[in-house]
Amino acid sequence: MKVDGIHTRSIWLEPDGWTVAAIDQRRLPHEYVVARLTNCDRAADAIRAMLVRGAPLIGATAAYGVALAMREDASDAALAIAYNKLIATRPTAINLKWALDEMRRALAPVKPADRVAAAYQRAAEIADEDVAINQAIGAHGLKLIEAIAARKKPGERVNVLTHCNAGWLATVDWGTATAPIYQAFDKGIAIHVYADETRPRNQGASLTAWELGHHGVDHTVIPDNTGGHLMQHGMVDLCIVGTDRVTADGDVCNKIGTYLKALAARDNNVPFYVALPSPTIDFTIHDGVKEIPIEQRDAAEVTDMTGRTHDGRIETVRIVPQGSKVANYGFDVTPSRLVTGLITERGVLKPDRASLAAAFPERVAREQEPLPAS
Amino acid sequence: MKVDGIHTRSIWLEPDGWTVAAIDQRRLPHEYVVARLTNCDRAADAIRAMLVRGAPLIGATAAYGVALAMREDASDAALAIAYNKLIATRPTAINLKWALDEMRRALAPVKPADRVAAAYQRAAEIADEDVAINQAIGAHGLKLIEAIAARKKPGERVNVLTHCNAGWLATVDWGTATAPIYQAFDKGIAIHVYADETRPRNQGASLTAWELGHHGVDHTVIPDNTGGHLMQHGMVDLCIVGTDRVTADGDVCNKIGTYLKALAARDNNVPFYVALPSPTIDFTIHDGVKEIPIEQRDAAEVTDMTGRTHDGRIETVRIVPQGSKVANYGFDVTPSRLVTGLITERGVLKPDRASLAAAFPERVAREQEPLPAS
Repeated sequence: MKVDGIHTRSIWLEPDGWTVAAIDQRRLPHEYVVARLTNCDRAADAIRAMLVRGAPLIGATAAYGVALAMREDASDAALAIAYNKLIATRPTAINLKWALDEMRRALAPVKPADRVAAAYQRAAEIADEDVAINQAIGAHGLKLIEAIAARKKPGERVNVLTHCNAGWLATVDWGTATAPIYQAFDKGIAIHVYADETRPRNQGASLTAWELGHHGVDHTVIPDNTGGHLMQHGMVDLCIVGTDRVTADGDVCNKIGTYLKALAARDNNVPFYVALPSPTIDFTIHDGVKEIPIEQRDAAEVTDMTGRTHDGRIETVRIVPQGSKVANYGFDVTPSRLVTGLITERGVLKPDRASLAAAFPERVAREQEPLPAS
Repeated sequence: MKVDGIHTRSIWLEPDGWTVAAIDQRRLPHEYVVARLTNCDRAADAIRAMLVRGAPLIGATAAYGVALAMREDASDAALAIAYNKLIATRPTAINLKWALDEMRRALAPVKPADRVAAAYQRAAEIADEDVAINQAIGAHGLKLIEAIAARKKPGERVNVLTHCNAGWLATVDWGTATAPIYQAFDKGIAIHVYADETRPRNQGASLTAWELGHHGVDHTVIPDNTGGHLMQHGMVDLCIVGTDRVTADGDVCNKIGTYLKALAARDNNVPFYVALPSPTIDFTIHDGVKEIPIEQRDAAEVTDMTGRTHDGRIETVRIVPQGSKVANYGFDVTPSRLVTGLITERGVLKPDRASLAAAFPERVAREQEPLPAS
């Protein structure tokens, strides 16, 4: 989407044809800094240090990391080293392993002399495939927004509430939850987004507000406490959030606090949609609350806050008393009964086992294959 | 309750017998500063600038403000000036008007020469009455905690979740929501409190965590997004919150985000209690969502955050991108259907019209009196 009026992806190749460039998301919204990733180590560091984040973008960065490694040494040994280095950067992102497996599959049969070209080609395809999936999610979600817009009186706008950042910054372009919003905006539909601040890491205030603002989408940042009040007063037409994992039965694991918004949506008859690329569905588990382990993260994310002072300095301040304990759960699980629909690249699905299985039969078939003999 | 091991109220008289001292709550938790209020203007400024906050504490401060005014000039004219100066400090706090009316009623029939002594006496009574009400709330709430503690296995603790600060800092002592917690702690019951951070003003992280920590109560600060996850996993035994206004039908207006916790409590069969002194009940209104106007506050409370840097400086940083709009609703309304009970000084009541009217018949009678002829 747009940054300062120029269409920008979260990751791209520089004009030299090989240097990988990515927006340093740790610096947003206070500074716009482009990092130049010139070798595999830098790509690995970028993922580890969360210079890039968001499962699809992590996958694309890892793919380009393999391409950068091949420039220096295209041997089988170097390919194995790059794979192991990159997969160790983040513990749980499914897309990371998927992208690295894709790269290995593409490069293993190619002779070393041709591997650099093949690696850059496959990495570019991985990035483009992510964009295509998100465009398809956007097209399906757009119909939901258009239906609401059609019921509005002249001058009224469609109000969407979202939590955290499932925006283009988390992907290569378009985002998942934001893809329908950007497509509606680009079509001229009057749309306004309530962006949950999303404590403790503030991805809503830092990233969602920044990217919506740069693309020109009208938006309002709200404390995470606010959404229920807005829904009670008819100020939200629909919620769209992203997800880190969806179970075979349609339970949704997403950023901590998503469940509270789903409860408020249900209590006020506001539709609650989850946008996701199908690789996010985990057909091996069913009950999300019982089966998905929830990562506990560093207390400093809660106790400390970073921002820009009025005279322009970047400072980190502590907001919790010394000696008070802190709990920092990264995610929660929204039971499928609270979800109106799952917006996937193959359409808007009911959040239940039969609907997911019918839409992605090849995934279910793969889960049912016998394990290979060991 | 205790500060550095010493029993402390939020407001008290200095040993000179007339100077009013109050904890400067704007500086907590980063600095413990006692403000000396030596005249009526300083008392008015303390309320206006939120050096003191919380409806009962505002009332007590205003009462002492009248006493300070009487020291300088005990005439009828000076009493009227002090009343008008103090009532203009905060627009909506019901306790402010109540305390000032009490002072006027106590002083009007007294001759000016005796007004200073009468004023200090009535102000002290107002402070002590608040303490007595909160102790009664605590005693009724304690029974709820004891019942839960009795079902716990050895070594298990009672987990209470609270939102914002309805602690002793908001009152003269004990607090409302915290009174049962402190009484349980003082009786030796193993109790642990999850304190919601309470964005945007962070009263949970700044005040509730500070006061619980100083009294020695085990507690954990959590982002406002976290409570739903904790309740899904059986980590909360009961919620207790305060309130700014309860309708005749039991709807509860409290700090923004309270409603989301009440929804999560209901979804997980966790009892959700509201602690309140009876003057907080507004017998003139019924439907809280429709009838209670919700104050919108300064955007800077959301965009900016104040804390202490690692090298000890107090700094304010901006965390929302320049150009992004912000909405800052101060309160929301929790419908009575989500409330398990109202903990008042006359016992734990069902949140419905009949129960409230039966417990406070004199209040209902007063509402039904014909308006005086104009």
